[in-house]
Amino acid sequence: MADWLAALDRRAELRAKAGLTRRLHPRPAGEAVTDLAGNDYLGLATHPEVTAAAARALSAYGLGATGSRLVRGSTDAHHALEDALAGWLGTDRALVFSSGYLANLGALRALVQPRTLLVSDAHNHASLIDGCRISGAETVVTAHADVTAVAAALAVAPGRPAVVVTESVFSVDGDLAPLAELHAVARRYGALLLVDDAHALGVTGPSGAGAVAAAGLAGQPDVVVTATLSKALGGAGGLVAGPAEFVRHLVETGRTFIFDTALPPAVAAGVHTAVGLARAGDPLRAELAARATFAVRRLRDAGLTVPTPDAAVISVTAPGPEAATAWAADCRDRGVAVGCFRPPSTPDTRSRLRLTLNAGVPRVEFERALEIIVECAP
Amino acid sequence: MADWLAALDRRAELRAKAGLTRRLHPRPAGEAVTDLAGNDYLGLATHPEVTAAAARALSAYGLGATGSRLVRGSTDAHHALEDALAGWLGTDRALVFSSGYLANLGALRALVQPRTLLVSDAHNHASLIDGCRISGAETVVTAHADVTAVAAALAVAPGRPAVVVTESVFSVDGDLAPLAELHAVARRYGALLLVDDAHALGVTGPSGAGAVAAAGLAGQPDVVVTATLSKALGGAGGLVAGPAEFVRHLVETGRTFIFDTALPPAVAAGVHTAVGLARAGDPLRAELAARATFAVRRLRDAGLTVPTPDAAVISVTAPGPEAATAWAADCRDRGVAVGCFRPPSTPDTRSRLRLTLNAGVPRVEFERALEIIVECAP
Repeated sequence: MADWLAALDRRAELRAKAGLTRRLHPRPAGEAVTDLAGNDYLGLATHPEVTAAAARALSAYGLGATGSRLVRGSTDAHHALEDALAGWLGTDRALVFSSGYLANLGALRALVQPRTLLVSDAHNHASLIDGCRISGAETVVTAHADVTAVAAALAVAPGRPAVVVTESVFSVDGDLAPLAELHAVARRYGALLLVDDAHALGVTGPSGAGAVAAAGLAGQPDVVVTATLSKALGGAGGLVAGPAEFVRHLVETGRTFIFDTALPPAVAAGVHTAVGLARAGDPLRAELAARATFAVRRLRDAGLTVPTPDAAVISVTAPGPEAATAWAADCRDRGVAVGCFRPPSTPDTRSRLRLTLNAGVPRVEFERALEIIVECAP
Repeated sequence: MADWLAALDRRAELRAKAGLTRRLHPRPAGEAVTDLAGNDYLGLATHPEVTAAAARALSAYGLGATGSRLVRGSTDAHHALEDALAGWLGTDRALVFSSGYLANLGALRALVQPRTLLVSDAHNHASLIDGCRISGAETVVTAHADVTAVAAALAVAPGRPAVVVTESVFSVDGDLAPLAELHAVARRYGALLLVDDAHALGVTGPSGAGAVAAAGLAGQPDVVVTATLSKALGGAGGLVAGPAEFVRHLVETGRTFIFDTALPPAVAAGVHTAVGLARAGDPLRAELAARATFAVRRLRDAGLTVPTPDAAVISVTAPGPEAATAWAADCRDRGVAVGCFRPPSTPDTRSRLRLTLNAGVPRVEFERALEIIVECAP
């Protein structure tokens, strides 16, 4: 057993030598930092109406849900949130999970039948990759955003049930999958389409209903949407939305739904209020889009490599992992929080800063933060 | 795609014919029901100090953590909770996850090296089973609580890294695994022991530190403990506790830790207060033990089949799934919430009511609820 711990130490040393050590940096309440690292795109996590709704439910229900959804954990707050989400997304029904990770694991497993083929984008999030794995289904990984490759994967498996699996706005590079084209290809081959809309919900689409809605795919019977309640909605938890038959199937058989304590009612209530604010948030979304354009121009003017973002995630290439870590640390020392993404959290071998826009950050503070990022660049 | 939904409908019909339909029953705030279904063993979910601490953190931090633990989600509230948990459990370190499910997935994957053999109890929780599966390791399922079978499984794999995987108090039948014997066998073969202490933490052990501590295994270098923060601690989330090297490994490589939004700070703060109350909760634990003895006697006197519980989970055999459903519904109609467990959520083919004791329920109400359960028995 001493071997065990010594082996873990050796692996930590290897990571350190490669510049890939990861450390937790706890933040105090009310930290005086400009947040370009979190996923609170609309600034709703601290919105007074959101926290007030959560506080009311905390008083009314207590802290935890006290059980799994089927045993004791379902409250009126969960059901009201699910109705609001389904109405917003334009799907038959929506089901809330305690995290987006568990929503993806649950959705993928529930979509798989005997012989199902999963066709998964190479840049997909860890929770989608793990969902493919835990489903036990044969999985073909296709090149990023490559509709032709998806079609080819489906073409070699005629008659087999299949599911095309993709994010909408990808979490590291912030680019958008070709959803309409993927859906057309999936439908041509009788396959289903699963879209993780986590980074688009609240940020893009009609009334912020996400990239699936923006692509005209809301409510299609062969489309399943997953997302988090922890990004633009400022809370915690995940969702699966789709046809009523599928949601019923998840309620009755989904292991990560059934065997998991429900989301705290206070979180469900706060997120419900956030849904209303997000639906009415076109001015916030316009501000996010303007800031994305502004940021890309400023960063490129400074000679930095920045792919064109499709939502509120901006990727800035770093020379390497050590440089990325030092860059992020320098920014933090000057009061700007940015994401630092290094292998294996990036879909290629490159390291990046990831800037996530937050409409709740004052504009002048945002512009100052961009200058600091430029000044700290390696 | 119409086929897809029709196939789901057919499966729902088969479940209905077998009496295995599952339906959500949302509860309103302040519902006038005696709770013998939830896992709020110490009544802390609604404890005024717990909800006050959560409310303060909600005001201070906002609703969500706004990011993963390594990017933006770590707050002082998380770290203070982790220190308190490690101190309570007597381990080097503890790490908080957004759910117990993800804690188990993360812990199992992190314990697996090339060629690792997992030896998993037949009654283990879905999250442990899925953890074994997602780890990709060869898994031998041994008969429930059978130390000899565990030894035999380890004996045929000499020299291979191995992990014995068990719950402490099992979630359906409420019995306790032979932890000391399992640890002795594991150590004899150089294997590690992973214990999911979810239903024991706060309920058994010195100062409620759980069944691992009660077995004298706290802080052993070859033992890893997982648990939920959503049962006796009244909140949400999960934990992994163990040697510092292992927790560091999880922070740096654990996919379900890294790629998941952090637990809301308000939940972390509320649970932190609950840890203090649980540590000081010997009178509550004495009351739970007295109620368990009382309940078993009353139910057996009524001719019901009840295994002897080791904590606060009491299993009552039902004649079949329909009878269990009707029994639970009759109890609910008379103001008593009980768990209704049917296949495939039971480790055998039998259906049960599951009664979970709650020290926050007034004693007279608890005794009245037992009478109603007896009166509604099939």
